[in-house]
Amino acid sequence: MIIDCHGHYTTEPKALQAFRQQQIAAVQGTAQPPSRDALAITDEEIRASVEGAQLRLQRERGTDLTLFSPRASGMGHHIGDAAISLAWSRVCNDLIHRVCTLFPRNFVGVCQLPQSPGADPAGSIGELTRCVQELGFVGCNLNPDPSGGHWNAPPLTDRAWYPLYEKLVELDVPAMVHVSASCNPNFHTTGAHYINADTTAFMQLLASDLFRDFPTLRLIIPHGGGAVPYHWGRYRGLAMALKRPPLTELIANNVFFDTCVYHQPGIDLLARVIPVDNILFASEMLGAVPGIDPETGHPFDDTRRYVESLPLSDADKRKIFELNARKVYPRLNGILSKLGM
Amino acid sequence: MIIDCHGHYTTEPKALQAFRQQQIAAVQGTAQPPSRDALAITDEEIRASVEGAQLRLQRERGTDLTLFSPRASGMGHHIGDAAISLAWSRVCNDLIHRVCTLFPRNFVGVCQLPQSPGADPAGSIGELTRCVQELGFVGCNLNPDPSGGHWNAPPLTDRAWYPLYEKLVELDVPAMVHVSASCNPNFHTTGAHYINADTTAFMQLLASDLFRDFPTLRLIIPHGGGAVPYHWGRYRGLAMALKRPPLTELIANNVFFDTCVYHQPGIDLLARVIPVDNILFASEMLGAVPGIDPETGHPFDDTRRYVESLPLSDADKRKIFELNARKVYPRLNGILSKLGM
Repeated sequence: MIIDCHGHYTTEPKALQAFRQQQIAAVQGTAQPPSRDALAITDEEIRASVEGAQLRLQRERGTDLTLFSPRASGMGHHIGDAAISLAWSRVCNDLIHRVCTLFPRNFVGVCQLPQSPGADPAGSIGELTRCVQELGFVGCNLNPDPSGGHWNAPPLTDRAWYPLYEKLVELDVPAMVHVSASCNPNFHTTGAHYINADTTAFMQLLASDLFRDFPTLRLIIPHGGGAVPYHWGRYRGLAMALKRPPLTELIANNVFFDTCVYHQPGIDLLARVIPVDNILFASEMLGAVPGIDPETGHPFDDTRRYVESLPLSDADKRKIFELNARKVYPRLNGILSKLGM
Repeated sequence: MIIDCHGHYTTEPKALQAFRQQQIAAVQGTAQPPSRDALAITDEEIRASVEGAQLRLQRERGTDLTLFSPRASGMGHHIGDAAISLAWSRVCNDLIHRVCTLFPRNFVGVCQLPQSPGADPAGSIGELTRCVQELGFVGCNLNPDPSGGHWNAPPLTDRAWYPLYEKLVELDVPAMVHVSASCNPNFHTTGAHYINADTTAFMQLLASDLFRDFPTLRLIIPHGGGAVPYHWGRYRGLAMALKRPPLTELIANNVFFDTCVYHQPGIDLLARVIPVDNILFASEMLGAVPGIDPETGHPFDDTRRYVESLPLSDADKRKIFELNARKVYPRLNGILSKLGM
């Protein structure tokens, strides 16, 4: 089976966006806060929102299961305060749960955390726990820059994050390191901020002893690891200069790259330098790059094609497509087993 | 001949660092500003500083000429104000000039600009002009984030930068887009900030009409273009989504990537996706990654080896090694011609 570990609900019913618009207006003082009870989305609307989109693409591309989280650029942790972020996160995560309940064989939930600039990361523990223990989610998205492009939070290796990591370890769920929209005009959201955050996070991990403190903590660096595989020689050299362990040892059980790289040469490089055990299949569909590549005639984000073309054994491809995801998201096994998958 | 378009004077005589330390102490109010006249560095010290370093490596690696600029992480535009930055830039550029005067067949100058957070980029025009017209420099390093990791300057495509671009065009010199040290704990200087800045700048250029306004402006994105070639499919797709021209058309005469990528798979990818006319040979030696790669037994930054191994014709390799640099830095031709090179 093929597990896509990185999909966002980018086709949400319009009522969700209206809720958010009203919430933002309330933050700006131009509207009343929206009522969660007034947010009426029917099962039919949810079905319609994914039927012609994610479900159709799963069928067309031959992928089976998507680890599904709220729209990343929509997390907007920089908007409002921690209470606003919590209210918005609960609404988004509940909606993901409804999608997963309607289509349990197609989607498993990954949650948004109610982070907020300056707020203690421990404040996200409650919503994380709720999503994992009550809603059956298997992971979360962790924003290394809740400011949206000002980068004024402590690095991911700072002890301020440790209570959240303790809970991730206790729940045995991984975090995908994923920023949200940029409100800094220097950084295009999907063309710079996302990729920079991936690169930044990896270098923070390289330079720290985080995994000595949390030997079972697992972090996924999305978008193929940002710039890291392309500059693998630079990072190997920096690790040596900083007297760090070899990179393959450093990432072994703790850091994983997804395959959201939208051309064959990029995926070829990824598989050439990163150990196959540290690569997770993903497409991010429907995500940042929705078009058809005129050079191939296929969608940019149909990443299965690129992975299938790799000069790897079937056993190695199966690791990338399925087994690594089961290892990194171990709660998946119980869920899939109950479904006979 | 082989022209290395990206080398920094990272082996400066200690007196230069002492000058800078005193300057920083003066900014902090704990010392008198240093006297430029008291900065005594002999020709012998300059010779000694490069003889066992850059000159030895040029000989060992078979490269000929380095486009030589002050230490990038040392520019420190975020320290002090515009007057401090100008004083420091003049000292650094004058020292580069002395190196180039002592070894005219080995080094040609590229200048540091006296940028400063919040200062008008036009304030750098005077020093740029001095370096090009009086000192014979052929290009400059342009810092897209003078704040050192806070990214609060306007994007490179903002009109605030236009007076500086007008001067670059008039002088017919290119700019390498290169940040300095990071003072943001999130960003490791050489492992994140440099690479992020490259990626960020490229995406700014992709999304703008800068080269419609400046059809002869030439910008070099160092470190192999940051994350860009690895994510070339993403950028091609984003260009389509943003209704921009195809990337090869967009970069054709205006954007160039250097070869500071420290492993064979990275250089292979670079040459596979970026047109050969847009690649400039560079090593950044002695730079961020000084060690020996245990996988090859050769220095990480001996990038000539990687380029030589590419499946390209000799004519294409000559473009990368020499001809593209002569095209991007046209003032080189007059200088080299006088030397019979």
